[in-house]
Amino acid sequence: MLEKIKVIGFDADDTLWVNEPFYRQSEMEFAEMLSDYGDEEYINNEFLRFQLANLDRYGYGIKSFILSMIETALFITNNKANISIINDIIDIGKRMIDKPVELLDGVKATLEVLSDKGYTLIVATKGDLLDQERKLNKSGIEKFFHHIEIMSDKTEFSYRKLLKHLDINAEEFMMVGNSMKSDIIPVIDIGGNAIHIPFHTTWIHEQVDSSKDLKFYREMEDISEVVKLFSSY
Amino acid sequence: MLEKIKVIGFDADDTLWVNEPFYRQSEMEFAEMLSDYGDEEYINNEFLRFQLANLDRYGYGIKSFILSMIETALFITNNKANISIINDIIDIGKRMIDKPVELLDGVKATLEVLSDKGYTLIVATKGDLLDQERKLNKSGIEKFFHHIEIMSDKTEFSYRKLLKHLDINAEEFMMVGNSMKSDIIPVIDIGGNAIHIPFHTTWIHEQVDSSKDLKFYREMEDISEVVKLFSSY
Repeated sequence: MLEKIKVIGFDADDTLWVNEPFYRQSEMEFAEMLSDYGDEEYINNEFLRFQLANLDRYGYGIKSFILSMIETALFITNNKANISIINDIIDIGKRMIDKPVELLDGVKATLEVLSDKGYTLIVATKGDLLDQERKLNKSGIEKFFHHIEIMSDKTEFSYRKLLKHLDINAEEFMMVGNSMKSDIIPVIDIGGNAIHIPFHTTWIHEQVDSSKDLKFYREMEDISEVVKLFSSY
Repeated sequence: MLEKIKVIGFDADDTLWVNEPFYRQSEMEFAEMLSDYGDEEYINNEFLRFQLANLDRYGYGIKSFILSMIETALFITNNKANISIINDIIDIGKRMIDKPVELLDGVKATLEVLSDKGYTLIVATKGDLLDQERKLNKSGIEKFFHHIEIMSDKTEFSYRKLLKHLDINAEEFMMVGNSMKSDIIPVIDIGGNAIHIPFHTTWIHEQVDSSKDLKFYREMEDISEVVKLFSSY
């Protein structure tokens, strides 16, 4: 099957570079700020509730995260907090945006090899375009990619749109990513190829029952193994 | 020159559908909310200052607009306002997101004709992906477009990336839009074609000195004139 592959799509956050731990860190700071109003579990749960309620309107990314954090603070404090807490939340967001990029091990070498082999490499991510372009720019790996594909969500429907846009068939596409829900299952379900590389931290909204029977996808511990897979092509 | 054109890019906001008047309306509501702290001109100026200061971090779109509005409110009230004003600002944003789409006159018929002639039509916009997908979806014109191209900014650099992504030369590309600064000048400057269709309202940050001498672009009053231009091809 692999000989048909023309385009390899890479998820960005927690596949190419560290991301989720920064979100977790920001959530801990947020819970600390509101510690007079409830314990960390309660605050995290309310925050998640607002994030999910706002997902259709706001989508993914830091700006959405911050807007939901502001709404959660207003709710939890019943509009009684000092308004300066809003400034503190906005600062959390700006610090997240300004974070340096930490590439994951083996990423650069893997992209170099696959790029040399003539595959078209793209970033396929559902983050915010500006966040992701900024990270790609800081990362030094931009040159390996044909372009960034920002997807408002990673569903079968949106992968079909992506394939149409790339003018290729599903069997010509391979997706590499850390989320079973977003990077693997929908791609396999439309007839594409996928490699799952788990990351140690996964947002609760991305977690799925991994016992689902899925043929045709591969699990790897490290992105460098992707190169071995393609070594005979 | 026109016989070389393969791809026609359409700006979205205020080219395909009404947008800027909704932003102006929200600014008026915002100035009204803060009328105890200054007149409309002062509040608008401070708001613009925050929007421009945040542009590199936040980019364009409703979420950025709302985050800058919140920061402006904190600044103007010197953190003294009732925190409920933040809720009111968040509501402005949600109402903007939920607005129905008003297509501009002639858009649908124009897209129909150009699509039938075999041109690849794309939306090339620097808004927020989710905002723009939602509007395209509500608009009923999604079927005419090959895909939406979200650009973090509309500079010569980003148009060059777009052409690379489309695998075409500049002379094979025609851009149609309402902003001289974003849709016309950078496209002409890299050797592409462009049609300017002014809209009655333009954000101050998009305004340029229109006396700049630019050959090779056309000015039209109405999108329907685009069809006449291509009628002999």
